[in-house]
Amino acid sequence: MRQFVVIAHDVPTDPDAVSLSDIPGAGRLDLLCRCVSAGVFLSHGIREQVRVHLVVADAFTITFDADTLRHLHPDERNVAARIRDALDAADDAIGHMPADVSPGVELRRMGVTATLDRLLDGAGAAGPTLVQLHEDGDPLVDAAPPSDPVFVLSDHNDFAPDERDALAERAERRVRVGPKRLHADHTISVVHNWLDTGGYADY
Amino acid sequence: MRQFVVIAHDVPTDPDAVSLSDIPGAGRLDLLCRCVSAGVFLSHGIREQVRVHLVVADAFTITFDADTLRHLHPDERNVAARIRDALDAADDAIGHMPADVSPGVELRRMGVTATLDRLLDGAGAAGPTLVQLHEDGDPLVDAAPPSDPVFVLSDHNDFAPDERDALAERAERRVRVGPKRLHADHTISVVHNWLDTGGYADY
Repeated sequence: MRQFVVIAHDVPTDPDAVSLSDIPGAGRLDLLCRCVSAGVFLSHGIREQVRVHLVVADAFTITFDADTLRHLHPDERNVAARIRDALDAADDAIGHMPADVSPGVELRRMGVTATLDRLLDGAGAAGPTLVQLHEDGDPLVDAAPPSDPVFVLSDHNDFAPDERDALAERAERRVRVGPKRLHADHTISVVHNWLDTGGYADY
Repeated sequence: MRQFVVIAHDVPTDPDAVSLSDIPGAGRLDLLCRCVSAGVFLSHGIREQVRVHLVVADAFTITFDADTLRHLHPDERNVAARIRDALDAADDAIGHMPADVSPGVELRRMGVTATLDRLLDGAGAAGPTLVQLHEDGDPLVDAAPPSDPVFVLSDHNDFAPDERDALAERAERRVRVGPKRLHADHTISVVHNWLDTGGYADY
């Protein structure tokens, strides 16, 4: 399983504040939509064993599960509509029980650290590995991909100090994607390719 | 200079047929918009020495030049509006003289082969190199990036037979991106990273 956590700092939690005619105006929701698409879609198909988690305003986490998604298209407006549906269903998420939004889409009442702890439950020998994308990490080409990686990315903002601390505490590995600062969605495409090729060893 | 040519088979040439409320309905224009963004944008910046050329219906080629672009945002709607502006200016393109659409955006009355021949003018020792993305090509990790590459990608459709022939005739190199069939925009992100890292040698 590959998992991508994308932290959205500025997306509103109120679905009425999300206009499909001004997706960037909703806290750069356009970027988040492209992250979902880069995470789950192949050309003419959908990936297997991938989940993308959008953490909105440290309050809600919206999960897209590629294995059970239905009727999602890769354009921003279609994904944004699904995110708005998720925010609209927030009242159905009680405690740590998710709200079922539509097939393959759930919303949980969890912020960054609760989501990381949930995903990393069972981390260890054969469990999930938090991989930090960091400028001081190992170049991708020199790193062996873990079998069950969890990557965490930020939107157009830098990680907040407490997010940075939460990552540093939980990260088992650090990798470096390249010399340029990429958008989160472009980073997801690069990381997928690294994993698809077994760390550039198997084309 | 890095150049990406993306062949759009189904995008209408009539700007009135492009609705910003249904971008995918305009021949999957959403994918083309994401190709432009993946081509020219970095996080909080724009790349240097990159051009993205969209060939629309083998009739027009719309060029985005990262070095002179102004006021473009990476969301699909913003890029789609610029493409619609370009189609709207088509009457100003006479012969092979471009129509100036807005800073960094031009439209030429050229189809696939005329565009390839224009971009490859001067190909040879120090000139541009057409690099074909092909499942039988060399794995990216084993290939040295050329200094002045031109990549050609197709939209959601396969290359047409005559396009495939035109590429095969002009391609100096073949590279293989990976085992999965990726969307064109995701491929651009992978190729940029390959070039950014000097063929995965320089992080």
